[in-house]
Amino acid sequence: MDKPFRRRDLLGIRDLSPAEITGILDTAETFREISNREVKKVPALRGKTVINLFFESSTRTRTSFEIAAKRLSADALNISVSASSLSKGETLLDTAMNLDAMAPDCIVVRHSSAGVPHQLAKVSKAAIVNAGDGANEHPTQALLDAMTIREHKGKVEGLEIAIVGDILHSRVARSNIHLMTKLGAKVRVAGPGTLVPLDFQHLVENGLTVSPNVEEAIRNADVVMILRIQRERQDSAYFPTLREYSIHYGLTNERLDLAKKDGIVLHPGPMNRGIEIASDVADSSRSLILDQVKYGVAVRMAVLYLSTGGSPTNN
Amino acid sequence: MDKPFRRRDLLGIRDLSPAEITGILDTAETFREISNREVKKVPALRGKTVINLFFESSTRTRTSFEIAAKRLSADALNISVSASSLSKGETLLDTAMNLDAMAPDCIVVRHSSAGVPHQLAKVSKAAIVNAGDGANEHPTQALLDAMTIREHKGKVEGLEIAIVGDILHSRVARSNIHLMTKLGAKVRVAGPGTLVPLDFQHLVENGLTVSPNVEEAIRNADVVMILRIQRERQDSAYFPTLREYSIHYGLTNERLDLAKKDGIVLHPGPMNRGIEIASDVADSSRSLILDQVKYGVAVRMAVLYLSTGGSPTNN
Amino acid sequence: MDKPFRRRDLLGIRDLSPAEITGILDTAETFREISNREVKKVPALRGKTVINLFFESSTRTRTSFEIAAKRLSADALNISVSASSLSKGETLLDTAMNLDAMAPDCIVVRHSSAGVPHQLAKVSKAAIVNAGDGANEHPTQALLDAMTIREHKGKVEGLEIAIVGDILHSRVARSNIHLMTKLGAKVRVAGPGTLVPLDFQHLVENGLTVSPNVEEAIRNADVVMILRIQRERQDSAYFPTLREYSIHYGLTNERLDLAKKDGIVLHPGPMNRGIEIASDVADSSRSLILDQVKYGVAVRMAVLYLSTGGSPTNN
Repeated sequence: MDKPFRRRDLLGIRDLSPAEITGILDTAETFREISNREVKKVPALRGKTVINLFFESSTRTRTSFEIAAKRLSADALNISVSASSLSKGETLLDTAMNLDAMAPDCIVVRHSSAGVPHQLAKVSKAAIVNAGDGANEHPTQALLDAMTIREHKGKVEGLEIAIVGDILHSRVARSNIHLMTKLGAKVRVAGPGTLVPLDFQHLVENGLTVSPNVEEAIRNADVVMILRIQRERQDSAYFPTLREYSIHYGLTNERLDLAKKDGIVLHPGPMNRGIEIASDVADSSRSLILDQVKYGVAVRMAVLYLSTGGSPTNN
Repeated sequence: MDKPFRRRDLLGIRDLSPAEITGILDTAETFREISNREVKKVPALRGKTVINLFFESSTRTRTSFEIAAKRLSADALNISVSASSLSKGETLLDTAMNLDAMAPDCIVVRHSSAGVPHQLAKVSKAAIVNAGDGANEHPTQALLDAMTIREHKGKVEGLEIAIVGDILHSRVARSNIHLMTKLGAKVRVAGPGTLVPLDFQHLVENGLTVSPNVEEAIRNADVVMILRIQRERQDSAYFPTLREYSIHYGLTNERLDLAKKDGIVLHPGPMNRGIEIASDVADSSRSLILDQVKYGVAVRMAVLYLSTGGSPTNN
Repeated sequence: MDKPFRRRDLLGIRDLSPAEITGILDTAETFREISNREVKKVPALRGKTVINLFFESSTRTRTSFEIAAKRLSADALNISVSASSLSKGETLLDTAMNLDAMAPDCIVVRHSSAGVPHQLAKVSKAAIVNAGDGANEHPTQALLDAMTIREHKGKVEGLEIAIVGDILHSRVARSNIHLMTKLGAKVRVAGPGTLVPLDFQHLVENGLTVSPNVEEAIRNADVVMILRIQRERQDSAYFPTLREYSIHYGLTNERLDLAKKDGIVLHPGPMNRGIEIASDVADSSRSLILDQVKYGVAVRMAVLYLSTGGSPTNN
């Protein structure tokens, strides 16, 4: 039988069992109402130290982790490391081991290179939580997406989920494909040919399909997950122009009409309105984008709590 | 009869009644002594989340708000958003709505464009506090100026107040003109012709005068408020050189001699010594510049407290 | 008889008596185990405000002070002041006096110019702690080095200590030379001729020797302290190339064999592996580099505690 989540590190969804994923989500549900209280604070992590170590800039994810830590009464510190300060010559592992010597309980790390959290986990006594590593994984994003789906659909199992956009560069897509297939959803990906990797064949048996076009992916979907076009990373010509991307792959109301009547729309943010998602879709009642952000705090509270030694909730 | 301040948002002084202004100032007075204690902390905002969202860099104002939040036991977070990170493509309103989905109680916002706090207030459930919006308003600065005047003069009503400098670009001037005239002071503004707007005529009935020169403004004043020359914003030729500005408009001891014997000097900081204010004036006993900073913490404690649901003090 | 440390400011080691140094180290020892606890927090500085005012960027030292402050329950604020924001025209002393008016209990300051903490100490009511001023002093680094030595050697007195590298530019070297000679160690410095100042003659009577070469300095040493080559500061040609520096001055296992059998290795970090220290030396059991970082938190807890009015431990 699968065990609930109780490992120290959260490096990716790929390594988690369905029961571990469910354990995190159940724990997040118990933390959810704290943010609705008059006094939004519980003493669960009092006297624990959480370091947000961000090698890539981020407003949303860093803020979400910092709020999660503070609502659990942890001492939260932010470290933004730009390329320039790494030019002092220290290796990444030395930086991590030095921070670890200050006895933090958890280091939340974001880095532009895949695998950095895994390297850090090998040398640190602190729990390592992956807040995004290159194009590899972004596990708390997939968890908050799953929590949003569970809250609105009651379950993930058996749902038809379309993931649309730049699959190739997206750690959000990668973590979600792992998570949703592990929980028994049927996942279909679609996007420009250049941006859909061919190496997903091994996942097909797990319920993944590469759709020939966006319409086929969305047709009859319970959940339409739109990925962000990372304009700042478009260093080569994967598609002609943003306008053309929008025309061929953007989520409009017409395309959304192909989904189930009660199909919902997710987007990890920040949104490029009018490019990958039409503005009226983003603002419609089917869009749960702000719910995702709200549940993000609860999921990160659960992850910080569990990674520093808390016991998971078993519903 | 006017009601005391109890709105959620503090967007500007313009929208406040005299009683609301007085309610904030009275509340600030009750918070003032906390910063003199051995243990500078009260539990008033325990479990509340305050986000400092600064789109313009600021040391003084951000620090003042952060200290105020922490002395009230709130969880305080800082977000500095540079132009570069907005280039990720998200709209300002989406940024605000996303932060709001994390359930902060108050968002303190500074932005280089007038009206941004007002836009945010329309979409957010959190209280919005304006920490400076373009050339529009900087309400907590005017409130701390009023508190400084009240502490030293016992009242604002009936005082003659000179505001000298770049009126045109100054949100400090704009908020102070509103506040001081609402509380019954006689306000005179003076500065280079290019920097004194002509659209203040509608305020004349409220007790505002545009003086023909600096000397006329200062003559017989109870309070001389010197504005900062914003050297970093001087993108066009409003006056010939800093040296000439200093000669014609800088506050020297001779000019200050025109004021009342017990006239006081205020400056919002940071000061350009030797330009808009002579160094010996800045350091004289008539200068209350450091008192302004001190009262700034108390005023911001009051504003954070009231905007998150606290009841005003009624003296 | 010497008095224990009880001054408000910690500006440098040069001004401290041996008893004051010992008082800080003894106090640090009592704080040391807090970071090993399940709940790493004591209420010693509850309601105190500590400002980290860094004019030079720093990850390690700022983080160490911030963790120290938070584990003592102080409210900690970070202010990073770049050259650009000082271009607003305010003087350094005005910046400090303004912060001081917000009633912090302690300002931890780092600046690229020697003497800045001393200037600030003259005008501020808050205690000033020097976190590195130009090439002058870095007193908490020397204190944590001393703590590391005491933990592993039981004492500092009588030990032979080699300091190797860029003595000229090193505030770490300067603070350590003062501290170690005050506590009765025999200190030998060595490095490229251009990087060893000649003005240390007055210290010779205190037990300082300038060694003719690295090997002579290290021979029979109990402690080998390696300085960082500050690549980012090498604006003139003190030595030909990093490779040549490494060959002639880098700490290799062969050079370390000249030290006592139980000789230990210290480095203030961040390390340039393969330049001033060979990678296998850095990772060997004789290297106490991570212990230094660990004790750094305890030393800074002691310094914050003592500078804000706490009483020193007397062992």
